[in-house]
Amino acid sequence: MGSHVIDNFALQNNFGTAEMRAVFNDVTRLQRQLDVEAALALAEGELDVIPRAAAKQIAAVCDISLYDLDEISKETAIAKHSLMGLINSVQKKADTAGEYVHYGATTQDIVDTATVIQLKEALAIIERDLTAIIKRLAKLSKKYQHTVMVGRTHAMQALPITFGYKLAIWTAEFSRHAARLTESKARILTGNINGAVGTFASLGEAGKAVEKQALDYLELNVPIASLQSSRDNFSEYANLVGLISATLGKIGNEFYNLMRTEIGEIEEGFSQGKIGSSTMPHKRNPAAFETLASLTPPVLKGVSLVHESMHVEHERDAMSWRQEWIALPEISIYLSGQLTNLLSILDTFVVREDKMLENLNRQYGLLLSEKVMFEVGKKLGKQTAHHIVYEKSMIAFEENRSFADTLLESEAIQQYFDRPTIDEWLDPAKYTGQSVSVVDDVYQEIEKIYGRL
Amino acid sequence: MGSHVIDNFALQNNFGTAEMRAVFNDVTRLQRQLDVEAALALAEGELDVIPRAAAKQIAAVCDISLYDLDEISKETAIAKHSLMGLINSVQKKADTAGEYVHYGATTQDIVDTATVIQLKEALAIIERDLTAIIKRLAKLSKKYQHTVMVGRTHAMQALPITFGYKLAIWTAEFSRHAARLTESKARILTGNINGAVGTFASLGEAGKAVEKQALDYLELNVPIASLQSSRDNFSEYANLVGLISATLGKIGNEFYNLMRTEIGEIEEGFSQGKIGSSTMPHKRNPAAFETLASLTPPVLKGVSLVHESMHVEHERDAMSWRQEWIALPEISIYLSGQLTNLLSILDTFVVREDKMLENLNRQYGLLLSEKVMFEVGKKLGKQTAHHIVYEKSMIAFEENRSFADTLLESEAIQQYFDRPTIDEWLDPAKYTGQSVSVVDDVYQEIEKIYGRL
Amino acid sequence: MGSHVIDNFALQNNFGTAEMRAVFNDVTRLQRQLDVEAALALAEGELDVIPRAAAKQIAAVCDISLYDLDEISKETAIAKHSLMGLINSVQKKADTAGEYVHYGATTQDIVDTATVIQLKEALAIIERDLTAIIKRLAKLSKKYQHTVMVGRTHAMQALPITFGYKLAIWTAEFSRHAARLTESKARILTGNINGAVGTFASLGEAGKAVEKQALDYLELNVPIASLQSSRDNFSEYANLVGLISATLGKIGNEFYNLMRTEIGEIEEGFSQGKIGSSTMPHKRNPAAFETLASLTPPVLKGVSLVHESMHVEHERDAMSWRQEWIALPEISIYLSGQLTNLLSILDTFVVREDKMLENLNRQYGLLLSEKVMFEVGKKLGKQTAHHIVYEKSMIAFEENRSFADTLLESEAIQQYFDRPTIDEWLDPAKYTGQSVSVVDDVYQEIEKIYGRL
Amino acid sequence: MGSHVIDNFALQNNFGTAEMRAVFNDVTRLQRQLDVEAALALAEGELDVIPRAAAKQIAAVCDISLYDLDEISKETAIAKHSLMGLINSVQKKADTAGEYVHYGATTQDIVDTATVIQLKEALAIIERDLTAIIKRLAKLSKKYQHTVMVGRTHAMQALPITFGYKLAIWTAEFSRHAARLTESKARILTGNINGAVGTFASLGEAGKAVEKQALDYLELNVPIASLQSSRDNFSEYANLVGLISATLGKIGNEFYNLMRTEIGEIEEGFSQGKIGSSTMPHKRNPAAFETLASLTPPVLKGVSLVHESMHVEHERDAMSWRQEWIALPEISIYLSGQLTNLLSILDTFVVREDKMLENLNRQYGLLLSEKVMFEVGKKLGKQTAHHIVYEKSMIAFEENRSFADTLLESEAIQQYFDRPTIDEWLDPAKYTGQSVSVVDDVYQEIEKIYGRL
Repeated sequence: MGSHVIDNFALQNNFGTAEMRAVFNDVTRLQRQLDVEAALALAEGELDVIPRAAAKQIAAVCDISLYDLDEISKETAIAKHSLMGLINSVQKKADTAGEYVHYGATTQDIVDTATVIQLKEALAIIERDLTAIIKRLAKLSKKYQHTVMVGRTHAMQALPITFGYKLAIWTAEFSRHAARLTESKARILTGNINGAVGTFASLGEAGKAVEKQALDYLELNVPIASLQSSRDNFSEYANLVGLISATLGKIGNEFYNLMRTEIGEIEEGFSQGKIGSSTMPHKRNPAAFETLASLTPPVLKGVSLVHESMHVEHERDAMSWRQEWIALPEISIYLSGQLTNLLSILDTFVVREDKMLENLNRQYGLLLSEKVMFEVGKKLGKQTAHHIVYEKSMIAFEENRSFADTLLESEAIQQYFDRPTIDEWLDPAKYTGQSVSVVDDVYQEIEKIYGRL
Repeated sequence: MGSHVIDNFALQNNFGTAEMRAVFNDVTRLQRQLDVEAALALAEGELDVIPRAAAKQIAAVCDISLYDLDEISKETAIAKHSLMGLINSVQKKADTAGEYVHYGATTQDIVDTATVIQLKEALAIIERDLTAIIKRLAKLSKKYQHTVMVGRTHAMQALPITFGYKLAIWTAEFSRHAARLTESKARILTGNINGAVGTFASLGEAGKAVEKQALDYLELNVPIASLQSSRDNFSEYANLVGLISATLGKIGNEFYNLMRTEIGEIEEGFSQGKIGSSTMPHKRNPAAFETLASLTPPVLKGVSLVHESMHVEHERDAMSWRQEWIALPEISIYLSGQLTNLLSILDTFVVREDKMLENLNRQYGLLLSEKVMFEVGKKLGKQTAHHIVYEKSMIAFEENRSFADTLLESEAIQQYFDRPTIDEWLDPAKYTGQSVSVVDDVYQEIEKIYGRL
Repeated sequence: MGSHVIDNFALQNNFGTAEMRAVFNDVTRLQRQLDVEAALALAEGELDVIPRAAAKQIAAVCDISLYDLDEISKETAIAKHSLMGLINSVQKKADTAGEYVHYGATTQDIVDTATVIQLKEALAIIERDLTAIIKRLAKLSKKYQHTVMVGRTHAMQALPITFGYKLAIWTAEFSRHAARLTESKARILTGNINGAVGTFASLGEAGKAVEKQALDYLELNVPIASLQSSRDNFSEYANLVGLISATLGKIGNEFYNLMRTEIGEIEEGFSQGKIGSSTMPHKRNPAAFETLASLTPPVLKGVSLVHESMHVEHERDAMSWRQEWIALPEISIYLSGQLTNLLSILDTFVVREDKMLENLNRQYGLLLSEKVMFEVGKKLGKQTAHHIVYEKSMIAFEENRSFADTLLESEAIQQYFDRPTIDEWLDPAKYTGQSVSVVDDVYQEIEKIYGRL
Repeated sequence: MGSHVIDNFALQNNFGTAEMRAVFNDVTRLQRQLDVEAALALAEGELDVIPRAAAKQIAAVCDISLYDLDEISKETAIAKHSLMGLINSVQKKADTAGEYVHYGATTQDIVDTATVIQLKEALAIIERDLTAIIKRLAKLSKKYQHTVMVGRTHAMQALPITFGYKLAIWTAEFSRHAARLTESKARILTGNINGAVGTFASLGEAGKAVEKQALDYLELNVPIASLQSSRDNFSEYANLVGLISATLGKIGNEFYNLMRTEIGEIEEGFSQGKIGSSTMPHKRNPAAFETLASLTPPVLKGVSLVHESMHVEHERDAMSWRQEWIALPEISIYLSGQLTNLLSILDTFVVREDKMLENLNRQYGLLLSEKVMFEVGKKLGKQTAHHIVYEKSMIAFEENRSFADTLLESEAIQQYFDRPTIDEWLDPAKYTGQSVSVVDDVYQEIEKIYGRL
């Protein structure tokens, strides 16, 4: 029984994936803490800080399936401490090696390093899905490279573009996110095991070596100085998630708008049994698009919370810390839902080229006013051209008439141009600028990074 | 297995109460939706919109314990719709009455009204705990009415106050929150059942009467116009929660600071088995105070999310809606944790009057510089007084000497005042201003509202 | 030369009004602080705390036009204190009365109470504009009470409504805001003058009377206990602003969407000289609608900042305080821009009833699928009806055909219904439900509050 | 007269620097837009898109000092357009070249690229100050490498550290920010000039070359695809600012806490004439520390606003855009205030080693409980050791007695250890762990990057 929507049995798959939930669920969380205790013990054994036999004994019991979760829960409540419940249980189970459990470490060493392991798993998922999206979008942009549609600014029809061009811009944006992810990874995947106030005091000279060895076992990087009061790497992770999520949300919103009844250029894939409305049988709703768009605001709130958690007091406090416990799983899970949702959308959405064409012609030529102005300007000068074209386009708009007709009512225009010329100007397919070539640029760039698509 | 900390079996009680989680968990959520379907059916039966027998039959199966949750979950996934899974199940179970289930209603009617029922339960809990806190604080403020302690501004010792005075200010603040809650309640507890776009189109003339009757059954208020695209009442609820939480967080932070080793005026109650640090045996940490303080930032993020959800498009959309599904439970659950935590703190915290006294004397008299300035000013004029007192206080501070001594090194002061006079000025207990009387004012105000305490 | 967009000479009028900027500009801020100093002096004179002549002398120089602003700026920098620069200047100007300036008060008394005066002025502006909007919207809702248009959910055409119905819902929403404002006003307009830590220590017995008298002069309410560490009233103001702004932003976004080229039901008023695009002559952009919508996000950020400022440490700190200095003017100014913008929009926007009609018919009848289902259900049962209607609507949608035609291909339907009947069902104007009557309900409610409109 | 605190003549220097305000003020904003128009014209001249003479003529008038600002302001109001007021003025001034002004560009090309120039200037300031802070902190960490002080967790004394160690951790954190800045720079400093919907339609084949040439002149990078609807680079800038600001705020808060009267380890530099309190002459407030801390929350709100602005609709909208106009200057200006403030603090703050020592001894030895436990553990086993040490430390705490005394009351301890041994354990200077060596590690790392310090 979940009380948060992330754990609501009926709704959770709209807010994240089972795979990402598994990375952050309560049992995995404990297992990752046990992983760190095991690595610590083994490193200490290796470096003769504790008996090697004890180290092995400890590592052997660092398996959450050996424990009674209710027991741990009860111990946690008594200790009023987030980790001691677990440690007490491990100590008991480790028998004579018990006293070497958690040797020289502080709670935050274990909890933070365990979190970094979780982020490593999360980042792998994110990177995998991000790559898949980039490749898929690049291929789609190529497929629709020449599919002319209306470009819109301020929600008004502006100029023709191609659908592939729109997709190429998204591809480029995700590709920048991938570059950011690559650059940030080494910092984010840094563990931290250095004792109560980060000085290795309990382990003395051996401290740094133990930290290095343990983090090597866990395949995490070693910090130059303790991170207990430096939480910027978590914020860097949050920034990454925030940016990727913002792009995903933008795309969800874009598809949602393109699916509007009155636009209809994109349709959400429709599976048998899917229900739009409980009362209106004709309704097909952009449910997946809305789901995609809806998760960006909560991700951005979580990102802010992680940012605020950088405000640590002294060598450590538990107030800022909890923001991370709340927000890091939240934003990762919401993002997983968005990534998967987009991948599924890209596999199933319908591109209505007929509607794109219909919309291109909806303004009877006005869409090409810029083109007309430039061409007319070549003969009459830009300012005169702007004056005439503006006037004639306003008349066409107000009176709902063909732009070619109103243009040809201008004597100045009649003098220099004939209808066939104007009709050619007004052909949207001839005024997509470099739409096609931008698609090629982006496609090549993606192939440079990811190889032949 | 919970992936959100709210549902993490080992940690959840630090982030909320079982009672509040129960209001919002996935099963209750469905039950509240069934409650609305039942009320709707009964109202429609009463008003002869559907057969009375069918109404009764439907009401009888609106009990979540009759259903297989996995089944509902599966149906929800197929329908890609948050409510249809449930409705389909109810229709099957209602047999011949099935076709009258959800008659004339739209999904949002059910989901929103069910949410309002949850908020009603949540508000009852909040109001109960708020009242308990107000009464408890008022009594504590009376108990410590005369307990002199240092007042601090900018974290520096400023002037004496009494501990009761500090508590009275919090009491007054919570009391304003209680007034706000009372004023907002009627608006917040308004249901909404008016069909696909809020026009009652499917029920025609009977629509308004059905809505009124159903909401009467549920003991909720009736909106003057559909709330499907008007989410301000949820934001008003969030505002309430945010303000109460902000006060709670402030108090958590205040106690945390007053417990600092170097201040030590307040101590968190210490129960057997509680562990401060996994490595430092002497540590007693302000764990409950930190927990109290730590939940305000996530509440405020949730409040923002609810505010953003007012941005509905057209007659309804599902993007803003989901923010409510995330945030309303979150902020209610976090708040429940804070309210309960404060109540428990107020029952167990230790007031160290010895440390308060020690701190009052830590500056060797400088704490009373304002008093000295006013008294000296009466003889020498305020500006001269400020000049002398400022100079002598800076010497006392720099040289770590008794303020009385440095004052008496001034000839002007020697001329008018003697050491006993100055010593009396420097008695903190004699310069708490109206601290005691403010406690009385607030106490009486609270008794006026809540009766004899 | 302004560096913030609020003070950018070329852009500022898109982000606020001159009137509201004047309430919060740097000179007014100082004048309001002088107003408080004057009221304090006069109250102290009245109560014989200081000589009456001195009080008058002080009041006489509490006029910012008497001072050299550069001088104050320089003094402020030297004192590294936000108020002392001003006080020093006043003391000099007040001559022999100088030593009675700011007598017994602390900085925050003056600054906070001055802020409350500013909020009083801001609230008056907000209330005035809110009232104007409510009346205007109510009248417009009556005007368009019968103007049928498409109602949309999830951005898809759902069912007919009337434009007046849409406006009535907004009217009701603003009317709830007005009720909230009325309820909150007494708390928000509470001043605070009670000395260094709020205990009136410097003024002793006379303290409470001085505070009351001074706040009476300023026509502000008196707090029951010091508000120096209780900032909830500012948050309550912020909540009000946030909710009103969220409604305004929603409306801006709604008009923006209704103006889309492909929808075209609403047009922004177009004034001579207004330019849509620097390059596309035909463009008419929803510039005012976008401006209206664009200011809600920054307001909500400011609201959050004010909420966070409730986190005061001890009896006062300057960290949380500054959030108020930033955010209270910001949100008030942005809101003023939105209120004025909406009023101007309501005076000039164009309602395109022809486009509304066109859009109603765009789906060849599908818009009325709910109506058909209910009518068919009366003969064939709801489930059978849903089955048939769903199938026939999907065919109409897929094949872009008339819904009446596909319906009549069903034998079951043919058996019971003829084309004229079906055509009547499919008339949008006959299926607006209680749209018209909801307008009347809201209109009457508004007249109950504001009198004959 | 400024209405935003950033432009408030008396307060603005607490919220930013004159240098950064100059980057973003209204006049510079216009000049940067003119810079882009000039670069565009010159590039178009160079590439024979427009006459070369016209290009030179245009470049010559792209100097804001040639224009009447009131005129531009008025034109802007008439055009209801943020850029056309300026363009109209330039066209007039450019005389016969007027028609080639803004040739083929769209508003957003100019405004966005101008913003990027501002960000380039801002980044240069940020990088300069960040470098100065890193070097200064590194040197200070070396200076105080051996200065022992209390390390605190949960605001409670935990274990000894050195002050240099604390500073080294901050140095490392800032150094990571510097690495982030370096990595992000190329992306952030990318301009964008590609026409109405980013397709270069108006310039045809020449478009890409014009964009490249113009951005080369401006020393900005060239995007692979239009950035008009891709705002992620601005968010990346905001992320950088947010992270740096969060570290600065943390340090402000840390110093603020270390200056508390009861701790007193750090003091803010005190200049003649600085006033702590308007009523308490002895007060020295941590004004600069509070100022430093206070600016992080508004920066984080601005960062969120920029994140939200990634939500662009279609090829461009003006709603998300405005968030950047608000937030990018805000966060840059607040950050400039923080950077400068910290540099000034580091030059003037006072380190009270006497108070550090006093605080180390305040718990009569308890501070070293971990050390004792480890040493005792070596003889008696960790669990027994924990048991004894815990018990004896609780007694010392409760009875306010020397820890050495209570320890020696244990027979087990007496058996193995004598008082001199225990006294040595309890010497804080002997238990700073690797504090000193971590300082060396960080110092060397910084020298590796920045050369000999």
